[in-house]
Amino acid sequence: MELLTILKIGGNVIDNPPLLETVLCDFAAWESPKILIHGGGKIANKLMERLNIVPKIVEGRRITDRETLDTVTMVYAGLINKNVVAVLQKASCNAIGLTGADANVIPARKRPVKEIDYGFVGDVEPENISGARLSKLINIGLVPVMAPITHDEQGSLLNTNADTIASSVAVALAHKYEVRLVFCFEKNGVLRNPDDDNSVIEFLDEPLFRKYKTEGVITAGMIPKLENAFTALHRGVNEVRICSPAGLKCGQKSGTAIQIN
Amino acid sequence: MELLTILKIGGNVIDNPPLLETVLCDFAAWESPKILIHGGGKIANKLMERLNIVPKIVEGRRITDRETLDTVTMVYAGLINKNVVAVLQKASCNAIGLTGADANVIPARKRPVKEIDYGFVGDVEPENISGARLSKLINIGLVPVMAPITHDEQGSLLNTNADTIASSVAVALAHKYEVRLVFCFEKNGVLRNPDDDNSVIEFLDEPLFRKYKTEGVITAGMIPKLENAFTALHRGVNEVRICSPAGLKCGQKSGTAIQIN
Repeated sequence: MELLTILKIGGNVIDNPPLLETVLCDFAAWESPKILIHGGGKIANKLMERLNIVPKIVEGRRITDRETLDTVTMVYAGLINKNVVAVLQKASCNAIGLTGADANVIPARKRPVKEIDYGFVGDVEPENISGARLSKLINIGLVPVMAPITHDEQGSLLNTNADTIASSVAVALAHKYEVRLVFCFEKNGVLRNPDDDNSVIEFLDEPLFRKYKTEGVITAGMIPKLENAFTALHRGVNEVRICSPAGLKCGQKSGTAIQIN
Repeated sequence: MELLTILKIGGNVIDNPPLLETVLCDFAAWESPKILIHGGGKIANKLMERLNIVPKIVEGRRITDRETLDTVTMVYAGLINKNVVAVLQKASCNAIGLTGADANVIPARKRPVKEIDYGFVGDVEPENISGARLSKLINIGLVPVMAPITHDEQGSLLNTNADTIASSVAVALAHKYEVRLVFCFEKNGVLRNPDDDNSVIEFLDEPLFRKYKTEGVITAGMIPKLENAFTALHRGVNEVRICSPAGLKCGQKSGTAIQIN
């Protein structure tokens, strides 16, 4: 099977324009087929502040009300997505910006209201993603660049976590391609000591993950990211790697390789 | 040759959500292949007001400075384009939202500075539009939905007039398709008397256009729209029509037909 690389870039990269440009140049130099998925960063929050929109928080959870949805649609699908596409085009990478609504690539389900009504948040299942349509775009020479916005097929856009989109798209394409999924964020990888950027855990399998979780070495935000990664591997993705922008240069194998046995 | 219909919807339609939904439903019911091009409407101006961005006007001309460019990118390519795509998807029309940067369909040239520096404004030439890439998207079953944003191939987005995009795309595709270009706006067509919506001029050729211009029947904003239309016809477009949303129902032939002999 042909190799497909999926790169997810996080908010800290988006929020640092010179770093973002370097990352995009490195990505442009990668062999096709490839897909880029970007998060949102702090631009949407800053815009909401300027617009005096007060973020709606219920029991510590952020709610996507109508104004928040409109703001993230403008920032993620407009400002960030289109500027990323323009920079990739400059680097001779034939990018095409997409939300999940475009070409209906990611139909989602508005999160059901239980204890909390999350508002316009979309949950995604890999089996609903149109891998066929994504690979048609790839086959005509395009590089999909995906914003973390989906839709409910009933006319409404939805806000969806970018990590979830990355791993779901990876799983959806795993029967057509040998899929390599790379999460790029501000640290050099998964760290043994969060204060020491040289303490990268080079290989991480599930027993080791459980051990590090128990010992408190791996905590908080990294846990769902890694659970996501293991799920993707169990569902057919060939390789998952977590690394810093420096690890994206062609031929590099830095960062943390997530593995199942 | 296969028939391709290009519909351009103006700001007054965008600014009226129930009307916009009706227009999109009618468009969804049209036979493919087809392309939708939308203008911006007043949402970007309202957002700029809320953000206390003062529109920059030089000698009566609106300038697209950095903040204006970012705002129109958010509103045109994000908010409007993606909501239009979501509504079309609901109506089973497999829309894909594009700016000129996406798939490099419309490379533009930043308007040269002469008396006035218009800022980030892109001028478009039909011969630079990638008709091949647009028809590849059409051939895989997609319906392009284009926002009035282009790019300079050097990493910068540019603000471009939607009417110009519509006629340039029509011309660029005229050697592959029999192209029908429809401009949909708030009036029933080109009117003999601007206060009487029943005074539609049904057919308009160049001698008649010159006559009406001399007599002052056709004025102001309608003149560049019509000059645009005649240029498109001279460059291979088969049919240009200007009509109201009511004229978009399948089989309708209302509004003004622009013709060359």
